[in-house]
Amino acid sequence: MTENLLERFGRRLRLGMVGGGRDSVIGGTHLVAMRADGLCELVAGAMSVEPEVAVRSARAELIAEERTYLDYREMAEREAARADRIDAVVVATPPQLHFPVARAFLERGIDVICEKPLCRDFGEALELRDLVARHDRLFCVTHCYTGYPIVRHARAMVAAGELGAIRLIEGELCAGDQGVATEPEEPAKRHWRFRKDSMGTGAILGEVASHAHHIVTFVTGLKVTEVSAELTTFAERREVHDNSYVTARFENGARGRIWGSYVASGNDHGLSFRIFGERAGIRWDQEEPEVLWFKAPGEPARRIARGYDSLSPGAAAATRLRPGHPEGYALAFANLYSDLARAVMARSLGIPHAPYLERIPGVDDGVEVMALIDAAVRSHAANGAWTELPARPRR
Amino acid sequence: MTENLLERFGRRLRLGMVGGGRDSVIGGTHLVAMRADGLCELVAGAMSVEPEVAVRSARAELIAEERTYLDYREMAEREAARADRIDAVVVATPPQLHFPVARAFLERGIDVICEKPLCRDFGEALELRDLVARHDRLFCVTHCYTGYPIVRHARAMVAAGELGAIRLIEGELCAGDQGVATEPEEPAKRHWRFRKDSMGTGAILGEVASHAHHIVTFVTGLKVTEVSAELTTFAERREVHDNSYVTARFENGARGRIWGSYVASGNDHGLSFRIFGERAGIRWDQEEPEVLWFKAPGEPARRIARGYDSLSPGAAAATRLRPGHPEGYALAFANLYSDLARAVMARSLGIPHAPYLERIPGVDDGVEVMALIDAAVRSHAANGAWTELPARPRR
Amino acid sequence: MTENLLERFGRRLRLGMVGGGRDSVIGGTHLVAMRADGLCELVAGAMSVEPEVAVRSARAELIAEERTYLDYREMAEREAARADRIDAVVVATPPQLHFPVARAFLERGIDVICEKPLCRDFGEALELRDLVARHDRLFCVTHCYTGYPIVRHARAMVAAGELGAIRLIEGELCAGDQGVATEPEEPAKRHWRFRKDSMGTGAILGEVASHAHHIVTFVTGLKVTEVSAELTTFAERREVHDNSYVTARFENGARGRIWGSYVASGNDHGLSFRIFGERAGIRWDQEEPEVLWFKAPGEPARRIARGYDSLSPGAAAATRLRPGHPEGYALAFANLYSDLARAVMARSLGIPHAPYLERIPGVDDGVEVMALIDAAVRSHAANGAWTELPARPRR
Amino acid sequence: MTENLLERFGRRLRLGMVGGGRDSVIGGTHLVAMRADGLCELVAGAMSVEPEVAVRSARAELIAEERTYLDYREMAEREAARADRIDAVVVATPPQLHFPVARAFLERGIDVICEKPLCRDFGEALELRDLVARHDRLFCVTHCYTGYPIVRHARAMVAAGELGAIRLIEGELCAGDQGVATEPEEPAKRHWRFRKDSMGTGAILGEVASHAHHIVTFVTGLKVTEVSAELTTFAERREVHDNSYVTARFENGARGRIWGSYVASGNDHGLSFRIFGERAGIRWDQEEPEVLWFKAPGEPARRIARGYDSLSPGAAAATRLRPGHPEGYALAFANLYSDLARAVMARSLGIPHAPYLERIPGVDDGVEVMALIDAAVRSHAANGAWTELPARPRR
Repeated sequence: MTENLLERFGRRLRLGMVGGGRDSVIGGTHLVAMRADGLCELVAGAMSVEPEVAVRSARAELIAEERTYLDYREMAEREAARADRIDAVVVATPPQLHFPVARAFLERGIDVICEKPLCRDFGEALELRDLVARHDRLFCVTHCYTGYPIVRHARAMVAAGELGAIRLIEGELCAGDQGVATEPEEPAKRHWRFRKDSMGTGAILGEVASHAHHIVTFVTGLKVTEVSAELTTFAERREVHDNSYVTARFENGARGRIWGSYVASGNDHGLSFRIFGERAGIRWDQEEPEVLWFKAPGEPARRIARGYDSLSPGAAAATRLRPGHPEGYALAFANLYSDLARAVMARSLGIPHAPYLERIPGVDDGVEVMALIDAAVRSHAANGAWTELPARPRR
Repeated sequence: MTENLLERFGRRLRLGMVGGGRDSVIGGTHLVAMRADGLCELVAGAMSVEPEVAVRSARAELIAEERTYLDYREMAEREAARADRIDAVVVATPPQLHFPVARAFLERGIDVICEKPLCRDFGEALELRDLVARHDRLFCVTHCYTGYPIVRHARAMVAAGELGAIRLIEGELCAGDQGVATEPEEPAKRHWRFRKDSMGTGAILGEVASHAHHIVTFVTGLKVTEVSAELTTFAERREVHDNSYVTARFENGARGRIWGSYVASGNDHGLSFRIFGERAGIRWDQEEPEVLWFKAPGEPARRIARGYDSLSPGAAAATRLRPGHPEGYALAFANLYSDLARAVMARSLGIPHAPYLERIPGVDDGVEVMALIDAAVRSHAANGAWTELPARPRR
Repeated sequence: MTENLLERFGRRLRLGMVGGGRDSVIGGTHLVAMRADGLCELVAGAMSVEPEVAVRSARAELIAEERTYLDYREMAEREAARADRIDAVVVATPPQLHFPVARAFLERGIDVICEKPLCRDFGEALELRDLVARHDRLFCVTHCYTGYPIVRHARAMVAAGELGAIRLIEGELCAGDQGVATEPEEPAKRHWRFRKDSMGTGAILGEVASHAHHIVTFVTGLKVTEVSAELTTFAERREVHDNSYVTARFENGARGRIWGSYVASGNDHGLSFRIFGERAGIRWDQEEPEVLWFKAPGEPARRIARGYDSLSPGAAAATRLRPGHPEGYALAFANLYSDLARAVMARSLGIPHAPYLERIPGVDDGVEVMALIDAAVRSHAANGAWTELPARPRR
Repeated sequence: MTENLLERFGRRLRLGMVGGGRDSVIGGTHLVAMRADGLCELVAGAMSVEPEVAVRSARAELIAEERTYLDYREMAEREAARADRIDAVVVATPPQLHFPVARAFLERGIDVICEKPLCRDFGEALELRDLVARHDRLFCVTHCYTGYPIVRHARAMVAAGELGAIRLIEGELCAGDQGVATEPEEPAKRHWRFRKDSMGTGAILGEVASHAHHIVTFVTGLKVTEVSAELTTFAERREVHDNSYVTARFENGARGRIWGSYVASGNDHGLSFRIFGERAGIRWDQEEPEVLWFKAPGEPARRIARGYDSLSPGAAAATRLRPGHPEGYALAFANLYSDLARAVMARSLGIPHAPYLERIPGVDDGVEVMALIDAAVRSHAANGAWTELPARPRR
């Protein structure tokens, strides 16, 4: 089906990229992800705010000089005017720019793939959601870990009731990389992730905890209603929080915890979830991403691996390789690109495109994340008081 | 050194047991643990409140008829009067009886090995601590998981500064056995652990979470000062909480979480800890109890296993078998018995006995646990407000 | 049932021990194992060929002076003459002494627990088997790893056909301890395991590979018929082989490999098996001894752990602790002691004792091991030619 | 450096593909692998012997109609005649065609990426090696698992002497997929891998065992000199062997075993190696491909993961993602494509290209594999006699 879409569309999807150049941590992953399935090609970019980096990064991707931009506004304008304009733009800038960049392209009728967190705060999030609706565009926010086929299978298992009613939900992304134990003496050397002007002192909630939050709501289909939060700053000289403990109540009465950290020293990555229902529990760890563990009381644990025939259709559709051949993170990320590409192609061909979109995180997922951040920051300010998430009006 | 103590003492330590009969879950483990190293023998018992069970249990252990008791008070009195009286008593009853049973023997000059949690509430705990001091007895509370050699090594590593200043402390015992998903329809069939009259509605904190709390304070040497708690009841018809989330602040500014659960469906056991310092993190899981994982940022994780020459003296002293031959839970438990036995023998022989006691949990550890329970229950009642632990006056 | 046997027998089984003193690697494990279930007590011993060690070792066990022996022959004679004579003797000497020691006690009507390998060579093995039969004694050879409950469950699964017809059988014990990389310069300092006079140059087959051989035949119930062997000496100055590769053909047409090594540098222990049938495979690793992995093609692996209700009766009978509380090696070893003790008690009480014996390795298992060694040494001498095991006449 | 090469080369490498169409198991992996790094593009193909499949497969890749071929000979001829001719051809046919296809392109000056095993037999292998030399072409044989960065690091560790002199070498690829337990009743339905006419009855040695053989020689740098082999057929109706046990002697005196199997029921993949030197051992498992375990006697095992700063330059050069973000199999495979692409570009630009080639398996590796197969088949025919590998004359 995939190949058939490409054939009928007759060409690869044309992508442009804002940010994601050689001075970016995440850019390289986007590039592998967009190329892996052969559905996309990168043809335009404003890949850095540093002009030299922007030019060098574009050249390295064989982007034509005339489509190498130094400013996203110029790019939006000039691309919109081309016959061979980009089909979609990738927003891979720091978070405070997500909103203006996305808006610039949405307003010109260009679909968007946007890095997480969606934007700067809950207000912007609602506004962005409206923009997407108003301009009738397709939008993906790259909470990329839900691209793993086995995570999609976890969602299918929960939906099928294999765990029974969900009671306990644990999500965490507790990282502990080199170099985050302390801040550099020179403020100029501090990474934007550790500056207040990016997303405020609670930036960790958007940068780190948001993946844990998103993945557990993706898998359970349950929204958080109230939180009690404890934010802490450990590293000397740091001006933002570097650890976030959030206890959560979910809409069905489940309880859970969402942990984000930069100071879990030693952890290479640290994203995992554990979900317990009335009948059984599952767990998943991003560092062993092909495997979902299922365990019922008094029974052998089952190691469910990507690729078995018994997996759900959603998981199967996201699978390229036979069992035992790990697909890894870049191909999970590629699933977001490819599903969005399929959606864009299908829509353009007049074929139903919703099934492709349902598998990937959209603007509503981004809104949920921003709502939790909003409540958590307020709870922390109120000494951990249980605090309701702001209302997210149904569209 | 061990064997030498026994030789000089000239006989095995004589133990009596209250509770722990065939109607008990934990009794069998105590029996294996006390026998393993050949330092103790069981010679007297009031092993159940059910007379028939008490008699049958004593017979199965070849306890003489005259030392088979139906009541712990009678046992305390008559044993105290014998020339070959027991050296120590094991209290393996439900928790509400720990205090009166322990008192009966302490007052007659008999040392005590007591199941956890120490007693019913913080008030009793302080009183028990005074009794131990007043009668100058030896006392061990069986927070048994700290008997694992590698857990002792973890403590030594933290003390030696190998992790740097401790920042994050995660402890959990999240069980999910068969049969705890719902309560039996008939109230009479409910286990005492799920009855309010045992330790109140927060019994889970003493029965389950206390192991997680104790082990992290044992390893880090840090006390909890404040908690924010969320207690929940999931199972139908249950009258006590079956899940406890506690967020904690520690005396040095560290943050942490202590989780206790009966409803983490599927988990066979579920005790583990993760501790992160400025420089590195460690983790340990009771289901793989020989192994301590140590990880510094950007470096290979190190799998430290029981038995290596490089382990700390405390861990080495608790080790019987070569590396690669798992010792397991019963021998960890045996370390508590054997260290207490050595302490009793040493004291009787006029040899310093404190080194043996320092390795095992005593009445002060029990007091800490009861203090946290006290604060957690109050915090929960105050909708999760941060709540200080009650003062534990230095003796 | 166990306790009932002890009660009816009215006392613990009286054991004597030859070897296993403080100069022995394995003695301490025997002591923990015999004590763990409270069915045995050690009352006599000739625990070392070094008189001083023999005396010191006996004292450390509180063995009476009059039952502390310096010579096993004297011990056999004098114990046989006592009213409270030992019920069974533990032979924990180097292998070349197994035969004469066992004979001395068998001839006096005393049952035997014998370290592995059974004896020096295949001829002795047949003779020992005859002695056991002629004197109608109970005999256990401590291929201790089959005492693990989950290994017994593996046997039950194979017997029940859950794997289908067995095709491939892999067993290995590849150790790589400190200090075996090279031999000490001084010949006197070489361990008896590395001396030709113990069991010849192929001693590794009895000391190490025999555990791997025994466990796979125990689990599959299949005998080896032919072998092709490659024995190698790697360490400088070593006079015996320190690595043995044996390829094997089994009676049902299955193929397999049995690997024994002292020079798999770094391995803490290294015993494991993998068995593949027509329908599924299982694997087990002694360093994670509670767990049996079962995997059918295209299906989730199942992690079968000790203690689940669904385990076979043989595994259940060998289980003391709930799932999630690792029992470890010493309690696996204890299963051999306790089953032999139960057999002795049952026989003495006129109750069927065979069921207890069937679970533990007996003299026939020892004979099988010696037969494979015999063939492997000949195959190696014939440059790896396929060589039949010698006939083991049915009794 | 990579990007710089691409920039200087000014375009992506143009690839053609023979085989690998939609009726192929391995084709999809090649496609992902060649696209991942953006260095290659597929512009021509004769992707199946079935004309319809060939056409459909080419269309799905947006290959122009004029470069869609039904026959590899036509393709070689017409591509060679184009100004925009392919730079290299991918040979992804069944093994008996590797030789004629590769020859057709080599003779026209086109570089080759060839699936394993290199060809049909040792004679062809030597001839192919000569063709490569005579036409001075670049050649890669896709023993793809050596593309994993951590496997390259393992090679660097061995070369640096971190294990000491190598003594024991264990390699295996023991698969146990669905559907290989028995052959279909209808001969026509049997896969070419199980037909004698592909590579003879010992086809398993080339299809399966060759990966295990190649990876251990890649990591150790040691060649096999003699083998003793036992080949077996288990599945009913199967006309080739489905299990191969090979014991091997290496040029430095090391011993080892190479196991290939189709009937290790349940295994999802099953490639792993363990290598033991005088000082330490390493192990690696393709199903956890980011991790290399290093263990010295009596010391903690070290879990060396892809991405750490301390890894060797060769491993670092093959790394795209930060630690904790698994790269997986397709990106390991991509390393072969990208290194070959870099070599071709570098050579064309007059830059030294050997460093790129040294990291990837070439025609000499293919020759080694065919030599072992040759000897193993003869050894098996001689009832397992130790058999020397045929001489591979130095060029």
